[in-house]
Order: sequence, then C-alpha cells, then structure tokens
Amino acid sequence: MNTVTLKPIGIVETEASPEEVRDKGRVSRIVLRKGLKAALDGIEEFSHLYVLFWMHEVPGEDKPLKVHPRGRQDMPQVGVLATRSRRRPYSIGLTLVELLKVDGRVLNVRGLDAFDGTPVLDIKPFDGWDGLANVRVPFWWVSPRDERRIRG
Amino acid sequence: MNTVTLKPIGIVETEASPEEVRDKGRVSRIVLRKGLKAALDGIEEFSHLYVLFWMHEVPGEDKPLKVHPRGRQDMPQVGVLATRSRRRPYSIGLTLVELLKVDGRVLNVRGLDAFDGTPVLDIKPFDGWDGLANVRVPFWWVSPRDERRIRG
Repeated sequence: MNTVTLKPIGIVETEASPEEVRDKGRVSRIVLRKGLKAALDGIEEFSHLYVLFWMHEVPGEDKPLKVHPRGRQDMPQVGVLATRSRRRPYSIGLTLVELLKVDGRVLNVRGLDAFDGTPVLDIKPFDGWDGLANVRVPFWWVSPRDERRIRG
Repeated sequence: MNTVTLKPIGIVETEASPEEVRDKGRVSRIVLRKGLKAALDGIEEFSHLYVLFWMHEVPGEDKPLKVHPRGRQDMPQVGVLATRSRRRPYSIGLTLVELLKVDGRVLNVRGLDAFDGTPVLDIKPFDGWDGLANVRVPFWWVSPRDERRIRG
C-alpha cells in the first residue's frame, strides 16, 4: 500500500499550553497558507467546522494497538481505533469547532484541541446532519462533559 | 511548512461503481492492514464511525480554489473549503458510516461514499455528541436528502 504525502493547508496558533488546549472554551487561530484565501469564501456562513490536523507532537515510534480509554487505568484496554486516543497508528486529529470570525486567511475558532504549531490538513463545513439519532456507544465511553461532572 | 507522509491503515472494497457509491444505502468493506486487527478490539460496540480516507482518484493538478456548491452551475461559486467538494487542496474524505459487522480485520459499513481501492487513513468512533444544536449553514447548503426530494 503506497504512502500518501500531504502538504498542510495551514497551521494552528494558540497561546494555550498542551494541557490547556483540551478546554473547549479556548479560542485558537488557523492561519492558512498564502494563496489559499479564496478557498475560504463563504465559509463565514457556517457556524461550525470540522478541522483535520496532523498531531505532529505524538511520537511516531512504539504506538500501541490497545489502550486504556481516556487514559483511565480502571477501564479495560480496547483497540486504539475504538478510541479517540492521540496515539493512533497515524495521528490525524478531527475536531468539531465553532467558527467565530474569518479575517483574511485567518480563522478564529473555539474548541480546537490542537497544540500551537499543529499542521492543518483540511477544513470541512459541518451541517448538523452528521449528528444522528440512535447512536450506540460502549459503557466505557464517557463524554468530556460527563467526565468533568464525574471527576468533579 | 513540511509535508506529512501517511501510510494508509487499510483499503476500501466495494462492488459499487464511482457513480453508485453516493448511494448511502450501499455496504462497503474496509480491510485493515495485517497486524492492525487488535486495534479494532471493542469497536463493534459503536454503531457509527468516522472514516477518513485519501481520495486517490481526484487529479492532483489544477485544483480550483472556488467551486459551484454540489456542482450546481445555478449556485454562486464559493471557496472550496466552504464545501464538501472532492476537488479540495488535499483530498481527504470524511464520512460518517454505520458499522454493521466486524469480521477479523474487515469492517462492513453502510454509507461510505469512497471508491473501490480507496486508501483509508483513520477510523474514529462517533458518539453523537458531535451533533450540535443551533448549527448555521448558508442558503445554498442542501442536504443530500433534501436534494433528492427537490430533484425528484
């Protein structure tokens, strides 16, 4: 199977530390490459976007096939593709963000849990129809919101 | 900005022609690379998955920055990143699919609009919390469901 080579379309800028980026209230900037500004035309009409990014800080070596969900040692190990763990075979991040402002080739977004300097691979509009009824998840799957409540 | 090199985790198998893959009722198979079977443990407990794939059939040259949404010439052109067009700067596909069955390192999924032979870059569980209320989209954004109704 051949490899795929991608050139990032832009980069994430944030003042947040790696520990702070999980705070979904944080605002980050996505700065697109020069020459891609026209590709954003009309994007300001969407309230939410998917951001695909390369988790460049995750070490490439010795990635496990199985992990404890959300790093919780009290949970049984599951396959890494059954989780949202960063330590996946190829570390593409996918986060749904709120679009606050478009300023030239800079997007201001809320809720992007990517570190400062993260290469952005793609941006896709979100239409809410991706949200489905009757979704089934395992017992160990905890939403970040519930986890905060449980952990206090 | 450095390039990113990815090795696909698997490949799409489908009997559907390129015209037929848009039919969301279609069932496809995702065949993971040997050695990645353990990474799927527990994934059968999810009803839906995001599939990230490399749209290998999209020509790499002369990709436009602006396109007519959904190929409709009667719509104003917008930036390609404000659409789900395949002809984006770097053609990563993102589709939410229904997981029907896991058989070793083969996933049977419904609704994957990827061509036969498409390299798969990542699989991520979907939890429904990605679906948000109060999502705003432009007037020209039409869901595939509505489009079918409009076009008859």
